[in-house]
Amino acid sequence: MGLSNGIKIGRMKRGRLNSISDVKGVTVGHFTLAEGPIQTGVTAIKPHQGNLFREKLLAACQVLNGFGKSVGLVQVEELGTLETPILLTNTLSVGRASTALVKEMLDENPEIGDTTGTVNPLVFECNDGYLNDIRALAVEEGHVREALSQCATNFKEGAVGAGRGMKCFGLKGGIGTASRQWDLDGGTYHLGVLVLTNHGCFQDLLIAGKAIGQEFPSPRPREADKGSVITIIATDLPLSSRQLKRLCRRAVVGLSKTGSLMTNGSGEIVLAFSTANRIAHNKIDAFIPLKILYDEDLDLAFQALAESVEEAVLSSLFHAETVTGRKERKLWSLKDWLEQCKSFEK
Amino acid sequence: MGLSNGIKIGRMKRGRLNSISDVKGVTVGHFTLAEGPIQTGVTAIKPHQGNLFREKLLAACQVLNGFGKSVGLVQVEELGTLETPILLTNTLSVGRASTALVKEMLDENPEIGDTTGTVNPLVFECNDGYLNDIRALAVEEGHVREALSQCATNFKEGAVGAGRGMKCFGLKGGIGTASRQWDLDGGTYHLGVLVLTNHGCFQDLLIAGKAIGQEFPSPRPREADKGSVITIIATDLPLSSRQLKRLCRRAVVGLSKTGSLMTNGSGEIVLAFSTANRIAHNKIDAFIPLKILYDEDLDLAFQALAESVEEAVLSSLFHAETVTGRKERKLWSLKDWLEQCKSFEK
Amino acid sequence: MGLSNGIKIGRMKRGRLNSISDVKGVTVGHFTLAEGPIQTGVTAIKPHQGNLFREKLLAACQVLNGFGKSVGLVQVEELGTLETPILLTNTLSVGRASTALVKEMLDENPEIGDTTGTVNPLVFECNDGYLNDIRALAVEEGHVREALSQCATNFKEGAVGAGRGMKCFGLKGGIGTASRQWDLDGGTYHLGVLVLTNHGCFQDLLIAGKAIGQEFPSPRPREADKGSVITIIATDLPLSSRQLKRLCRRAVVGLSKTGSLMTNGSGEIVLAFSTANRIAHNKIDAFIPLKILYDEDLDLAFQALAESVEEAVLSSLFHAETVTGRKERKLWSLKDWLEQCKSFEK
Amino acid sequence: MGLSNGIKIGRMKRGRLNSISDVKGVTVGHFTLAEGPIQTGVTAIKPHQGNLFREKLLAACQVLNGFGKSVGLVQVEELGTLETPILLTNTLSVGRASTALVKEMLDENPEIGDTTGTVNPLVFECNDGYLNDIRALAVEEGHVREALSQCATNFKEGAVGAGRGMKCFGLKGGIGTASRQWDLDGGTYHLGVLVLTNHGCFQDLLIAGKAIGQEFPSPRPREADKGSVITIIATDLPLSSRQLKRLCRRAVVGLSKTGSLMTNGSGEIVLAFSTANRIAHNKIDAFIPLKILYDEDLDLAFQALAESVEEAVLSSLFHAETVTGRKERKLWSLKDWLEQCKSFEK
Repeated sequence: MGLSNGIKIGRMKRGRLNSISDVKGVTVGHFTLAEGPIQTGVTAIKPHQGNLFREKLLAACQVLNGFGKSVGLVQVEELGTLETPILLTNTLSVGRASTALVKEMLDENPEIGDTTGTVNPLVFECNDGYLNDIRALAVEEGHVREALSQCATNFKEGAVGAGRGMKCFGLKGGIGTASRQWDLDGGTYHLGVLVLTNHGCFQDLLIAGKAIGQEFPSPRPREADKGSVITIIATDLPLSSRQLKRLCRRAVVGLSKTGSLMTNGSGEIVLAFSTANRIAHNKIDAFIPLKILYDEDLDLAFQALAESVEEAVLSSLFHAETVTGRKERKLWSLKDWLEQCKSFEK
Repeated sequence: MGLSNGIKIGRMKRGRLNSISDVKGVTVGHFTLAEGPIQTGVTAIKPHQGNLFREKLLAACQVLNGFGKSVGLVQVEELGTLETPILLTNTLSVGRASTALVKEMLDENPEIGDTTGTVNPLVFECNDGYLNDIRALAVEEGHVREALSQCATNFKEGAVGAGRGMKCFGLKGGIGTASRQWDLDGGTYHLGVLVLTNHGCFQDLLIAGKAIGQEFPSPRPREADKGSVITIIATDLPLSSRQLKRLCRRAVVGLSKTGSLMTNGSGEIVLAFSTANRIAHNKIDAFIPLKILYDEDLDLAFQALAESVEEAVLSSLFHAETVTGRKERKLWSLKDWLEQCKSFEK
Repeated sequence: MGLSNGIKIGRMKRGRLNSISDVKGVTVGHFTLAEGPIQTGVTAIKPHQGNLFREKLLAACQVLNGFGKSVGLVQVEELGTLETPILLTNTLSVGRASTALVKEMLDENPEIGDTTGTVNPLVFECNDGYLNDIRALAVEEGHVREALSQCATNFKEGAVGAGRGMKCFGLKGGIGTASRQWDLDGGTYHLGVLVLTNHGCFQDLLIAGKAIGQEFPSPRPREADKGSVITIIATDLPLSSRQLKRLCRRAVVGLSKTGSLMTNGSGEIVLAFSTANRIAHNKIDAFIPLKILYDEDLDLAFQALAESVEEAVLSSLFHAETVTGRKERKLWSLKDWLEQCKSFEK
Repeated sequence: MGLSNGIKIGRMKRGRLNSISDVKGVTVGHFTLAEGPIQTGVTAIKPHQGNLFREKLLAACQVLNGFGKSVGLVQVEELGTLETPILLTNTLSVGRASTALVKEMLDENPEIGDTTGTVNPLVFECNDGYLNDIRALAVEEGHVREALSQCATNFKEGAVGAGRGMKCFGLKGGIGTASRQWDLDGGTYHLGVLVLTNHGCFQDLLIAGKAIGQEFPSPRPREADKGSVITIIATDLPLSSRQLKRLCRRAVVGLSKTGSLMTNGSGEIVLAFSTANRIAHNKIDAFIPLKILYDEDLDLAFQALAESVEEAVLSSLFHAETVTGRKERKLWSLKDWLEQCKSFEK
């Protein structure tokens, strides 16, 4: 997965799959709706393969730009843990995706809402309303369950799942992933990201530092950037929620290098989790033993993150195909557009 | 509305109705479900009577303790505005309430998701799972619409709407309201609050400074406080979103005076809005003229808030009746419990 | 230390000294300037007795109301550690106190600024300008060193050190302390607080729930509350910086119960640290083993905090004597004022 | 000022001076210490030429990475205003610079600390300890006054003032500036930035998208990035403090494009102010009329910011000369190093 076209981002070693699923236990699944004006879907990420509610992971989030409607962040911020799979979908389907995820958790955990407390669903979104008839609220609860059931180590990128209708730098965006790995203190550690890209204007697009958006004509007139980009970060490095938050805040480094200006209308939200420590829902002991990274050793994780985010955004562009949606609107894939540009030149 | 039993909280003058609806344009409606193990509902607050999406209000929010699942805060924090009515319901019904509110907004505004962007639903929650079979997800989309359609200046407090199943200081809690008014610079200004109370242990209950929770036996064994409390603040004072956030952070003053300890499991979240300035969705001009309060004059608003919050919490207790819910669990009303205590003494 | 006059705040057991120094290793020292119009000073808190720079403690801070000039919070927030003693002084002396503390750290640690990085001084302040000629910048670097050298388990409360010139609820405020202890999992844990009180109006004063400020005439006309209150929290409970921040946010519960309204001009800032884990400045290993409290067990710490803060504020009032400062301004001690009131009555 | 070497950053029009002083009223002054092991100084920025304490400006700040010791941020965050000039200096001199700035304000405003409250000095810092004997605390109060008195529209960039000892991408860094201007609604608006650059590793350096740090050998072995970068943003656009904070959060876009990874040890802090509205210290009326930008029109300001920050960082590198400091340590200027590299090749 990730970029496979000879473009090299950064200096660190890619993970084996160059994917968020290089972090052991992480899987991803999609459900895609692609019929005429309905171009949307759901992407699910499972942070580990056990019972997440009973064995939570340390997590953090950061709102880089809050023009967005993602849910579940309040509790992650307070408690520093996540307890459900993570869903991505379109903006107006967040409510239904939340309900579907809650039901899934209720089914799996009969104690929720009965003998223990409730559950905090995590749902992130971008607005795919350019291509997709978002007013139709086409995502149904069954679609969410389907995405969850499809979760696997190998998964598609581009115009699939939640990425189906997304627009990125005026081109077809969607789902992208990438990862890095490095050695530390005798072990090998991984950091992987998955992005849902729906942001940016063509004129600002940078590919590996090259101002592609300035070299080629734009497929579209310059218009306000009303999209968003969601970044999910997974790592097997033992990080505290404070350290995971430090990671989240740096997603912007990779985003910037692809040309994002974090415009007014772009909801840019980041979630990070570590698979290294599990926190039991039911108290085992008053004290929890943790192993946490020494902060100075975060620098390689920060570099891995910057490289992975930059590459994952590009990967979403390289994998997405040209898609036509509502009102016969068409978003060119990066590849198709560049070929189109060459044909102009002739 | 509010306290009418001779108890006096603070020194400021109450609003005419002693209600959040003393702020002109604010209305409240409920839908209540009360059958056997289903003891829950929805409460809706309309911040003004026009089209909220097209004429937004300045707003702010503050998470005092984030063990909660309320939605919509990310965008309020970033943009400093609200654009929908505010809903309160039970924790697991947030998704469905969001969807219902989105649909309501789509119906009212055909441009959303078509020629303009999306909409940010505001839904707050507490966990009524002690009395209510919260796993049944009994709140339906139609119930939300019903609550919205019931919005009026006069409304019930206590075990109604979202407050139906709530437990406060070990007693029956629910919806409470109160307000204060004062003169400034030739005008009269109002601040009103509405609370959804589901927090606290009986032993900690204070009524007008009196340690009632220590004077009387507890209706229930001491147990972990896993509730929450939501505070909605309305004012006609012209405040910026920064100033409204300063208000939000002070809701805790009033909560503390009723005995809240802001325990681990209590999601304490506050939203404030001002009706004094309206922000058009569609740009009229590059610059928006605003009139904003001089910060030193906030002190009376802070006092009005502390008094109103303290009184609104007590009002929720005074208005709620004894309710029996799932598993034959019963929550005494404050009044019934104090009478019960007296009968013990005989 | 703390209240010794029969007033009981809360239900938990007091620590042996009823002081922040019940947390083993914590000591406090003062330097007081009290001559005519100069009524000010410095209070120093040592969080442990070793080399703090080389063995840091987990820490967190929270700005409840940011009308204040305290320094060092940015780094505590980012790294979750403290690495110097904590100083309290008057607002305009923060710069000089910082410099003195930096020099002290440079003397103790020749590696700072040479072979390793710099150091983050922690200095908190309130404005004692009512009684003290704060424009004189009377605090000198030597005074800071003196306060540091005086640090001991036993220390004075009231109008001493940084508290010398402070005004609280219209009366003489200053330094107060209190603590609570409780058993958990076979061990006994302590939480202690030290406050520097310079906030509030007489009319709002509550003592153990009683509206003293309403029962007695005010020693002063009602005026804008331009003071501040600083709260320092120490505990031997093993808490992460996230958990310590949760503690900090709850200091307001205790403050509210004494009548604080967190007015516009009152800088209310909180710092908390735990002595249970030490973080080495020089990397020992890439991973740091920590033991952290299970979050649900925080509730007793929250209660201990609420009780200690309420009691420490009152203790500052009970210990302070009547002081006369610049322009012959006099602040009555609580005791003197109440006696004065009785003499009025006759 | 700014880049004058043919390198073009971005697409927007530069301000006339390409400097923060393109925002009318903004001036900058330096005091430089450059003798043997003492390579440090002070840079002062005056946001307007009137009495800042009595006529405050709307302002905001953002800590991107909080490994830093800057002071004054707490109050800017709460009140959304600044009331003093802004100082930049070395880390351990922050205390003394604060004191000097306080004295300057006391001299100018006899009411401070007497008939009105205190004053909030704004001092930012980076650690110049690689070249400078920072332990010597060589900056004196008189140096601060000198920097303030030197403030002018034209000022030097590079290894001057606070920038004297700074290291950026392994080369000589320091002070840089740049600006952009654009038309809106019949007016011309400006945004200018000034940076103090002390961050980054040579290997990561990007110049206008080109990976210079990979093309040329490093002047220094790869080492932990323990520097920092301070970004000061000025604009004559009428922005609220909320909007100014949105600007601050985007400084990272420009920083990233020069190769910053926001490493663990790099304190990255941003302050922004608008000269468009003045807020009187003494209340004129309970209500303040403001004119504020419509949020969607922020996008050009965001772009101006990204371009200005990227260019200002590069400008600091292009203007700084090679400097030798303590322990005969030498930092090459960018120009000298690239010439050195060419001579290697021969």
